[in-house]
Amino acid sequence: MAPDTAVRPLAVVLVSGGMDSCVSAAVARRDHELALLHVSYGQRTETRERRAFRDIARHLGVARTLEARLDHLGAIGGSALTDEARDAVEARREGSSIPDTYVPFRNTHLLSVAVSWGEVIGARRIFIGAVEEDGSGYPDCRQEYYEAFNRLLRAGTRPETDLAVVTPLIHLSKAEIVRQGARLGAPFHLTWSCYTESEIACGRCESCRLRLKGFREAGIPDPLPYRT
Amino acid sequence: MAPDTAVRPLAVVLVSGGMDSCVSAAVARRDHELALLHVSYGQRTETRERRAFRDIARHLGVARTLEARLDHLGAIGGSALTDEARDAVEARREGSSIPDTYVPFRNTHLLSVAVSWGEVIGARRIFIGAVEEDGSGYPDCRQEYYEAFNRLLRAGTRPETDLAVVTPLIHLSKAEIVRQGARLGAPFHLTWSCYTESEIACGRCESCRLRLKGFREAGIPDPLPYRT
Repeated sequence: MAPDTAVRPLAVVLVSGGMDSCVSAAVARRDHELALLHVSYGQRTETRERRAFRDIARHLGVARTLEARLDHLGAIGGSALTDEARDAVEARREGSSIPDTYVPFRNTHLLSVAVSWGEVIGARRIFIGAVEEDGSGYPDCRQEYYEAFNRLLRAGTRPETDLAVVTPLIHLSKAEIVRQGARLGAPFHLTWSCYTESEIACGRCESCRLRLKGFREAGIPDPLPYRT
Repeated sequence: MAPDTAVRPLAVVLVSGGMDSCVSAAVARRDHELALLHVSYGQRTETRERRAFRDIARHLGVARTLEARLDHLGAIGGSALTDEARDAVEARREGSSIPDTYVPFRNTHLLSVAVSWGEVIGARRIFIGAVEEDGSGYPDCRQEYYEAFNRLLRAGTRPETDLAVVTPLIHLSKAEIVRQGARLGAPFHLTWSCYTESEIACGRCESCRLRLKGFREAGIPDPLPYRT
């Protein structure tokens, strides 16, 4: 059967515009038709991230997209990613094991949109590019969180709904993610990871540093320019 | 210690404007300071429900309120509550055990907002007026769903966060909810339950019928007027 005539299951992929979600989309499209979801929540670089999302969707040839806004996350605050008064470069809050860029319970909001949309359009999988070991240290990026989420998903949707969240990158290092993305032709040149700038990445924030370390360890050049 | 000087733990209460959430708020205020959360999601009667929320907050003397909008739930559709093309009175879809007014995974969206807000303001409890036995038949109104949600909450928030969802009405009948509300002085006259109208309740939709049955069985008159 030729790949273009096979009926493939539908997957919703959460695409922030960063490198992890871009690789997650490249993984998903090996076996699925894609529906790409982007969520803005008042984060500092939301316009730049939305551009990255649209560029990636166009590059992958995916017409089925949804852009959602969660303005209340910005209104609620509590994170250096959404509060102008906080510094997203100095990432760790004194006395806490969790970075100051943690947006309280954020991934549950994002996954809820993916589940509602996925249930309505008949998707079978939700892909999210969460990374545990070499990642951000956020509580909602751990394997344990996703196992709990899938139990909630089964308890909270129609009995006939057959949908589950998968996290293909969760146990990969950043270098392994870069290598896998390169193998699958992920469009890294269209992605955006920086927490603080919106034209040229700063190269200094936690997200830039993790990304640069990944490319360096993979021995693959990062196609993005950096300020420092 | 006089009640007005005691330091009481803070609770976020989800208040839709309906009778169950109004009773849930009345239960919560026995032992907690209240923060009231209302979420609009493009449902047919959202303006009327928001008015009920504000009236209830004012009546209870609660100044700490948050109104959030989840417009993507309306955009995603899949429910008679948000799709104009569907009939919210004829509630059950052929071949499904779940009413057509089910909004896919809705309560996870609402609870996510409550958790994010609760984590930032230091709340200890989230009250939601979900009802299982005598309720709507929605999958996300069952005890099992809330147990799964609390496991997710613990996995997805800061380790120092001490927050849990409680469902004081989940095993009550509608008549018991009416009686409890009456005992606690819940302002039923300010609530709104109807799925389909926004000035005088229809008395015919699933939500009106459940409400009217509850008041009838409790032997307490419903203070709202009805069209039929």
